[in-house]
Amino acid sequence: MARRKKIYEGKAKILYEGPEPGTLVQYFKDDATAFNAEKHDVIDGKGVLNNRLSEFFMTGLNNIGVPTHFIRRLNMREQLVRACEIIPLEVVVRNFAAGSMSRRLGIDEGTPLPRPIVEYYFKDDKLGDPLVTEEHIAAFGWASQQDLDDMVSLALRVNDFLSGVMMAVGIRLVDFKIEIGRVYDGDFQRLIVADEISPDSCRLWDLQTGQRLDKDVFRRDLGDLSDAYTEVARRLGVMPKNAATATKPHLIN
Amino acid sequence: MARRKKIYEGKAKILYEGPEPGTLVQYFKDDATAFNAEKHDVIDGKGVLNNRLSEFFMTGLNNIGVPTHFIRRLNMREQLVRACEIIPLEVVVRNFAAGSMSRRLGIDEGTPLPRPIVEYYFKDDKLGDPLVTEEHIAAFGWASQQDLDDMVSLALRVNDFLSGVMMAVGIRLVDFKIEIGRVYDGDFQRLIVADEISPDSCRLWDLQTGQRLDKDVFRRDLGDLSDAYTEVARRLGVMPKNAATATKPHLIN
Ligand SMILES: Nc1ncnc2c1ncn2[C@@H]1O[C@H](COP(=O)(O)OP(=O)(O)O)[C@@H](O)[C@H]1O
Ligand SMILES: Nc1ncnc2c1ncn2[C@@H]1O[C@H](COP(=O)(O)OP(=O)(O)O)[C@@H](O)[C@H]1O
Ligand SMILES: [Mg+2]
Ligand SMILES: [Mg+2]
Repeated sequence: MARRKKIYEGKAKILYEGPEPGTLVQYFKDDATAFNAEKHDVIDGKGVLNNRLSEFFMTGLNNIGVPTHFIRRLNMREQLVRACEIIPLEVVVRNFAAGSMSRRLGIDEGTPLPRPIVEYYFKDDKLGDPLVTEEHIAAFGWASQQDLDDMVSLALRVNDFLSGVMMAVGIRLVDFKIEIGRVYDGDFQRLIVADEISPDSCRLWDLQTGQRLDKDVFRRDLGDLSDAYTEVARRLGVMPKNAATATKPHLIN
Repeated sequence: MARRKKIYEGKAKILYEGPEPGTLVQYFKDDATAFNAEKHDVIDGKGVLNNRLSEFFMTGLNNIGVPTHFIRRLNMREQLVRACEIIPLEVVVRNFAAGSMSRRLGIDEGTPLPRPIVEYYFKDDKLGDPLVTEEHIAAFGWASQQDLDDMVSLALRVNDFLSGVMMAVGIRLVDFKIEIGRVYDGDFQRLIVADEISPDSCRLWDLQTGQRLDKDVFRRDLGDLSDAYTEVARRLGVMPKNAATATKPHLIN
């Protein structure tokens, strides 16, 4: 494969220059990090699973008219996406209390919330991605009021869609995080869902057993992360049972 | 003085049943606490100063039509106030970055903010008064959207008034916190400024020297807290120079 320009290497993915202007290649690594990268490990096959799962969710969203960056999958670990200006906010939607919300507000994990709650975290590893309010976002110009309105609409539509997908396969969508970016069509600017949607960025609990099928398995040492993600992929019919393990001889990049 | 029923003892004040229904007596203690009461000390005369300063600011606010709980001062350490249902939020207005905002968002202390920023903290000592967003407040029913709109209006009017007061005596109003409560006039409910406004609840920096004239003197061991508060009172012409120290033989309660 011809050498491409690497644009950014993050904790879980690498971005390369795409084949056409306005596109990028997103490469999914096997690295798992938590607690602002204090905990780190390499989980064999995670990148392959997340590439397929993110493709699955983004395609579904594109189909129902929720615009995303996803164009097409290129291979086991890479997908072609539309380049955008990422808004420096992690947009979190919560249906049940868990994780930092449970700790911060003293609400037991698993408590149903009175309604879906949308939160914004300022995307800055050095600061530990602090929760921010619309006041902060407006005052510091991270997004306009129009952007915020559009972000809430996108986030709630993603929540509806993903809740449905998950319910269909016996999984509770506890919460998830998305990143949103700006794209320009001539003078016209709009927002699209970018980055990834995968068990790295969602909390997914088995509806019957409560078993964690997401990155908490890694954060809290609850078992084999790759098994959990494979189970999600299997239920969604996303990939052949052994695809993850079949990638062992990492010769892709 | 006749024995009154104690209704609540907090970190800095005690509430007693008032002489008439719907009133309370607020007693200002000399206790100073910081970092969620991990740091504690008794600062001789602080209660006397805060009683006078809160009277001064609340009276000024009443005069410009910003409703407060303040009715009248009773003695050196006590004031009569209107009882209200406290909304469990600390409402913070910031004009310059400082304290937790500087730490959380990585903004140097003293940086002017692009505009006054209103923040809400959930009043819960066990949780360390976490920052919350309007989403949390609405979802958990701590205040309605109408309440929030009224709270922002009150908070910004207090900010305008206090900024003016402070500017007039060579002090920068960096930020401050208020508590807001509900009162009922028949079927009609409205919000009023309650609790206290004092150097315990404001950040006040000398405009020329940057000297701290507020509770940070205590939090950060910058000198004598009572001297700092006395200086604020002196500049505002609030009390005779020696009133604070004259209270030494605490025989009041
Ligand atoms: N369509 C896109 N256009 C531009 N940047 C994107 C797009 N999708 C995702 N990104 C960015 O690419 C990076 C993905 O790599 P990741 O390993 O998740 O990084 P990080 O460690 O910063 O979270 C993120 O910084 C994300 O904001
Ligand atoms: N007008 C009022 N009516 C009812 N409660 C009030 C009023 N003003 C203040 N309070 C409450 O009285 C208490 C004042 O005591 P304080 O020492 O500040 O307590 P805390 O340690 O809880 O902050 C606070 O809990 C405050 O919310
Ligand atoms: Mg990322
Ligand atoms: Mg208090």
